[in-house]
Amino acid sequence: MKLTALYKRPQDMEAFEKAYFNMHLPLISKVPGLERTVITRFNRTIMGEGFYMMAEMYFSDADSLKAGMKSPEMAAAGENLNSFAEGLVTLMFGEEES
Amino acid sequence: MKLTALYKRPQDMEAFEKAYFNMHLPLISKVPGLERTVITRFNRTIMGEGFYMMAEMYFSDADSLKAGMKSPEMAAAGENLNSFAEGLVTLMFGEEES
Repeated sequence: MKLTALYKRPQDMEAFEKAYFNMHLPLISKVPGLERTVITRFNRTIMGEGFYMMAEMYFSDADSLKAGMKSPEMAAAGENLNSFAEGLVTLMFGEEES
Repeated sequence: MKLTALYKRPQDMEAFEKAYFNMHLPLISKVPGLERTVITRFNRTIMGEGFYMMAEMYFSDADSLKAGMKSPEMAAAGENLNSFAEGLVTLMFGEEES
């Protein structure tokens, strides 16, 4: 089970990058149950309204994702997110198939 | 390097699923250079305007992705896609970081 965050292109990319990688990701990494995070940078949009970046945050199962979402660590990460990425984020629960 | 397709929720989910998994994915699997495809089903949106599904199609590098995009097999898959998913698709090139 994973938590997927899609980010629209920020107006100030340098400020966003700094806030995301220096502040937000370290906070996210403290969330209990999080096993790994994969960042994707989108460098070209072929069709539709594209995104700037994606973070896929993997948890072992639905219960650990739910517990992680309710943790004080996630609350802190969410509060931090709102300080630099308001209106840019799409956040979804997802399940991978092969 | 990967090609990422995001799909908005279709009006007729059953027809979409049938067209996607029985017709489109087999066509995509023929694209030269494609190493693997990971499907994600999004089952809950927490923030923003969510998506229904995502396909991540992995190629070894930028050149093989570009060659795959120009192949007749991709042209056939793209034509097929337009027949059932027009207006639902966001398509982007992306690069993963760990």
